[in-house]
Parts: sequence; C-alpha cells; structure tokens
Amino acid sequence: MKISVLSLFPEYFAPLLTTSILKRAKEKELFEFEVIDFRPFTKEKHGHVDDTPYGGGAGMVLMCQPILDALKTIRTENSTVILLTPQGITFKHEIAKELSLKEHLIFICGHYEGFDERIRDYVDMQMSLGDFVLTGGESACMVMCDAILRLIPGVIKQDSSDDDSFANGLLEYPQYTRPDVYDGKRVPDVLLSGHHANIKKWRHEMALKNTYYHRPDLLEGRELSKEEAMYLETLKQESDN
Amino acid sequence: MKISVLSLFPEYFAPLLTTSILKRAKEKELFEFEVIDFRPFTKEKHGHVDDTPYGGGAGMVLMCQPILDALKTIRTENSTVILLTPQGITFKHEIAKELSLKEHLIFICGHYEGFDERIRDYVDMQMSLGDFVLTGGESACMVMCDAILRLIPGVIKQDSSDDDSFANGLLEYPQYTRPDVYDGKRVPDVLLSGHHANIKKWRHEMALKNTYYHRPDLLEGRELSKEEAMYLETLKQESDN
Repeated sequence: MKISVLSLFPEYFAPLLTTSILKRAKEKELFEFEVIDFRPFTKEKHGHVDDTPYGGGAGMVLMCQPILDALKTIRTENSTVILLTPQGITFKHEIAKELSLKEHLIFICGHYEGFDERIRDYVDMQMSLGDFVLTGGESACMVMCDAILRLIPGVIKQDSSDDDSFANGLLEYPQYTRPDVYDGKRVPDVLLSGHHANIKKWRHEMALKNTYYHRPDLLEGRELSKEEAMYLETLKQESDN
Repeated sequence: MKISVLSLFPEYFAPLLTTSILKRAKEKELFEFEVIDFRPFTKEKHGHVDDTPYGGGAGMVLMCQPILDALKTIRTENSTVILLTPQGITFKHEIAKELSLKEHLIFICGHYEGFDERIRDYVDMQMSLGDFVLTGGESACMVMCDAILRLIPGVIKQDSSDDDSFANGLLEYPQYTRPDVYDGKRVPDVLLSGHHANIKKWRHEMALKNTYYHRPDLLEGRELSKEEAMYLETLKQESDN
C-alpha cells in the first residue's frame, strides 16, 4: 500500500509518521507514504496556485492546472484518487476498511475557498470527514490516513482491532485498569472474577448498552442474535421505567 | 479564547500553528494554544501512564490518575473539558460554533485502547469526530481545533465564512477561477456576465442543487423560502424524468 498526498503544506504531515504506532509500522515498511507539494507545478508566472473566483466573492480558488499536472506525474492505473471536499461521501470505518485494501491512494488536499469545480471530473472519489469546515484538507487527510493505515495487517495487533468501536457495528465496552478503586469508584466485580465466559458476556452486553444509549442509530438494521434481542428488550424496559 | 490539549504526543500539534491561516491568527494573538504532556504527572514508579485491562484482552488502557492530575493544574470554572471518544456526540459545524464562543477549552486525547471508564465522570463533554477508529485522539483534536479556531472573529474574513458549506445549512456552490476554458471545460456564462443579481441567484440555486444531490439529509427540516421550494420542485421533476 502506498499513500500519496497532494498538498500545499507538506510539513503538516510530519507528525503522522513520527509518533508511536505509525512510526513503527513505517519502519517495518508496512506502507509507503509521500507528500507532494503541487505549488512547483504551476505555470502561473508568479508561482500562484490560486486566483479570485469568477463572478466575484471573498477568498481564493485553487486552479486546476497545478494540481492536475502534479497528479499526472504520480497517477497509475492502480491509483484511487480522492478529493477532500465537503460534498463528498462521509468517511467512516467501512470506507477506511475498503481503502486499506487498495494499492495506491492519492489524496488531494484543498485550501482557501476550495477547488475550481472542474477538478471533480478528474478524480475517482470525493470524500468529506464530516459536517464542518476546515482551513484546509490537511488535518482531515491525516485523520483518514491514520484510520486507514492502522487497518493494514501488522500495523496493530489483530485482536486489538477486532474489538474497536464500529468494527463490529457497536461502540466499545467500558475498559478499566489499575487501581481497582479510584477516587471511591470501583471496577465492576465481574472483571475481577477471572470468569472468562461471564466477562465476555458482560462486555458484549455493555457494548450493546453503550450503543443503545449513545448511538442507537448504529443498531438500526442490525441482525440481532436471540441474546442481543433479549438484552435490548431489558434495556428498553429499564429506560421506560 | 484559550485551548489546552492533554496528550502524550505534544509534538503532533506543531504543524497546526505553523501553517497559513492559524499561524497568522496566533501571531495576532487571537487565541492561546497549549499542549500539555500528561506523562510527567504519573505516580507510577516506572513512568507508565497505561496498564493492562481488568478482565483481560488486548491493548493497554490509560489510567485515570495521570490525566486527571494534569487536568487539575489547568482547569478553572471557565473551562469546558472535552474527552475525545467514539461514544461522544459527533462533532459538526454547530458544535464548532458553540465551542468557539467558550473561554477555555480543554481536550483530552487518548491513545492505545482508550481511557479507564471512570474518567468520564470528570469531563463536561464527550465528543467523537466520526464513525471510525484512530490510533489516538491527536489528529481528531487537530481537526476540531482547526474548525473551531477559524470561527473566532478575525481569524478569517467574515464574508468568507458566511458562504461556507454547512454554515447556512447547505453545501457550497461551485467555484471557478482562471482560465475560463480548461481542458475544453468552460466556466458557466452567468459567472462571466457581471450581472450580480443573476450570479447571486445562480449560486444559491447551485448550492441547493449540490445539497439536493449529495446531501439531501441537510434539507430535511429546513424552512424553505418560496423561491427555494420552487427550485427544489424543478430539481425533483428533472430527476424523476
């Protein structure tokens, strides 16, 4: 897997690969990562990559030429080109999973007022991180890279990612560590019991409970096991009382 | 406005304030920003801030003590303490707007398998960036800081942010810049017409159209003007044919 990022601020991405998990994965050559500044590709004589919008208005718009000329130098038939834009599909775990299987991802990060509309004809996907506005696509791109890269085999322990929130369609169960009493608050007895079957059952029920109370939308359309259905029924009765 | 971040990786945040818009805003002292490493606050004799989960399982869980002791040193009655966690409410433009009016935001970034559950009793809000999993909260925090800081008066031009996607409940209209023909694709005539009322009308319609096709959920519950209702009716008829 290789990730290429087109951005006006290559230095923004430095921390992604210098900290913790992704640093070790990069050293083990589990993926390749490069950031390409598209500014040097401009044919505008003063080195600009943006210009005022046709029709007037505030802000500057990124021109097609520098970005698409930079893109030409790295794109192959195995590349998936992703434009970061508010009107794209919203990034989520399933998309991260799908993209983690691709050979070559190219992210295009905008800045200022955004891209010249015509750039959309040259990309494979348009993606958004959520319903908010950023000064540029860089921080959103880092989030996506982090979410995608950690799903590449070997980057984190497999049994560690199986329990992640969203990975199995539920929020994660509560976790506790030392000490067993903190500020008067005790760790639930079941976790100290050493009874593995009970711990597993409790954790699954707590994951359901977390999801039921915090993200009920995740339960819509879920195929419930008999045990899950019974437990959710109990929760409903509890919250009705 | 002041933002404090509690994180094990303070160096991760360096680029946020060294690039472009936020750099200039920081130089103008429009906000304060600090990152505090909570590792030195641990009372664990080997300097650890995490430990294995009670009940077994993969990964390490962050202990309450180092984080909450670090928090005590910076929290005041004017602080809003935000825990970054998948089970939090999903971050979006309205929340960014609300938080941009606060005096002091404190973000707590997790890492590894997450926090000891008991930490949730000590925070004001729990927030998630979206339905995906990250190796740590740092990149999500940078996105949120970017979205919040740019809404502080003076950071970007006001008329620039009024037209943002989501700011008025719609995706943005298409933008075009030089040249008027790129690779055979022309800028729409109306934008070259110099007719301001027509341009304004076209842009508003295109914003509605973008939203109708890409994010129809944003239109649900919107109070439509007579013109908007008529235009959306035209779009519906078009897409039915």
